[in-house]
Amino acid sequence: MILTVTLNTALDVTYRVPRLRPHDSHRVTEVAQRPGGKGLNVARVLSALGHEVVATGFAGGPVGAVLRTLLASRAPAVTDALVPCAGSTRRTLAVVDAATGDTTQFNEPGPLITAPEWAEFLNTYNRLVRGAAAVALCGSLPPGVPVGAYAVLVRTARAAGVPVLLDTSGEALRRGVAARPEMIKPNAAELAELTGSRDPLPATRDARRRGAHAVVTSLGPDGLLATTTEGTWQAAPPRTLSGNPTGAGDSAVAGLLSALVEGLDWPGRLARAVALSAATVHAPTAGEFDPRTYEEVRGSVKVTQPQGQERP
Amino acid sequence: MILTVTLNTALDVTYRVPRLRPHDSHRVTEVAQRPGGKGLNVARVLSALGHEVVATGFAGGPVGAVLRTLLASRAPAVTDALVPCAGSTRRTLAVVDAATGDTTQFNEPGPLITAPEWAEFLNTYNRLVRGAAAVALCGSLPPGVPVGAYAVLVRTARAAGVPVLLDTSGEALRRGVAARPEMIKPNAAELAELTGSRDPLPATRDARRRGAHAVVTSLGPDGLLATTTEGTWQAAPPRTLSGNPTGAGDSAVAGLLSALVEGLDWPGRLARAVALSAATVHAPTAGEFDPRTYEEVRGSVKVTQPQGQERP
Repeated sequence: MILTVTLNTALDVTYRVPRLRPHDSHRVTEVAQRPGGKGLNVARVLSALGHEVVATGFAGGPVGAVLRTLLASRAPAVTDALVPCAGSTRRTLAVVDAATGDTTQFNEPGPLITAPEWAEFLNTYNRLVRGAAAVALCGSLPPGVPVGAYAVLVRTARAAGVPVLLDTSGEALRRGVAARPEMIKPNAAELAELTGSRDPLPATRDARRRGAHAVVTSLGPDGLLATTTEGTWQAAPPRTLSGNPTGAGDSAVAGLLSALVEGLDWPGRLARAVALSAATVHAPTAGEFDPRTYEEVRGSVKVTQPQGQERP
Repeated sequence: MILTVTLNTALDVTYRVPRLRPHDSHRVTEVAQRPGGKGLNVARVLSALGHEVVATGFAGGPVGAVLRTLLASRAPAVTDALVPCAGSTRRTLAVVDAATGDTTQFNEPGPLITAPEWAEFLNTYNRLVRGAAAVALCGSLPPGVPVGAYAVLVRTARAAGVPVLLDTSGEALRRGVAARPEMIKPNAAELAELTGSRDPLPATRDARRRGAHAVVTSLGPDGLLATTTEGTWQAAPPRTLSGNPTGAGDSAVAGLLSALVEGLDWPGRLARAVALSAATVHAPTAGEFDPRTYEEVRGSVKVTQPQGQERP
């Protein structure tokens, strides 16, 4: 079983409008809703890859209830181990302009998590992590959760001998990295914020020195750059696929974690992660992956070792 | 008791963002929710004016449940006589740009109302209308409700001897007017659509010939123009008040209806409606009215009779 943690779950709402005009009134022609927050996106992809997945984090209020109903109605199933909170789960809204395909995004703030709710979550996490083959800690922290939360969760997983991937940003990432997770998966902006460097290769190596055993940096359409105990690799898709990048990073996390659990080596893990990302960008629905593109791409991802790499 | 009908209720959601930038991602700094749809707005104002109000229409799904909870938590209370429907009540979203104060509006489509749900509503309406001093029929029709719905509801009220105000647009207004409601309250655009004329005075008179006993046209900051069995009046606020016009028309409806029930003459009804409208535009929260502005303005509304008016 793979455990995914989404402390700041969201109900992802998508509005389609004929054309977005600021300060105008719009008839919404289509409304779609699905469980969201990075960890729940990762859980959905893991489950589609055939892995048993348990999702924890918080859900509360009427929006949380809708999220849980939608989570339960999906096949293949993700086991719902979300902890109830008194505050209401946030919504995110993507307004898609049908004329251009462009998306305008609105993210509500998360609910305030109380100290007893955080304690209840820690109990749930401590119990679940012992049965997990790997853990994904994903996304932002809702108000009320201590900023060092991910460091605590990383240490618990490591004490239980369970590999943990951390995918967050800012201070939560900085604190979490110091607790020595198995992997982090920043994008270029998150990596620059962590290390102060905009040059991906030295920045990726710097992030590893801060504590992560492996740093996998997503470079958008150029693929992934990984610095690990076994060496440094760059993995790129065979060609640039057009589409919507929403969720591509979450699919990469699912690829890395599923391949880790299945015992693949680094080139294998990276090839899977890049193929899943590309198949997500190329899918007709934002955040889903297209299985045909995945099968087609994963055999032809180019995994190379940059010149002048450090010996492990 | 005044009965308000809102067939297409809505949960009105307001997002405040620092600055709206199309195709960008926005952190929502404030989220507000309240029961909406024109008839529920009218009910809120009537209730604040001290009238006993019963609100009917449809509410369904998780959004409908939130709407009913919010309706129940308001003081002074509006009696909830909403009929459950299987579809989910729609949301409307107003995105307020904090830098400019401008609002961008998104309106979800309403739930599909089934034939048994419509029959159930008619039972409820027929029962409630007999105990009402006046009825307000407000807003758009959700999918599934017959386009002649308002004509049926007007006739039922008239058969029970209860005066009825109809505030809708398009084909629903055209059909409803023919059933001879006591009052309609179009804005200039709705009136032009109904009559084909953009000149308010002849258009207002034309609308009256189509069946309404009185036509009160809202002219935005210029106030109201009324053609009635007793004469024609124009009512204007003493000065233009700056602010957000959202809900000003609904406040005018509440003013007209409450004054009718209290036995005020036409100049008195129009003065109240104009003062409530102005106090709504001037209120800090969109769609609420500012009681101080209302008290201050209502004594100084200018009610005049245009030159060359028809004798009643």
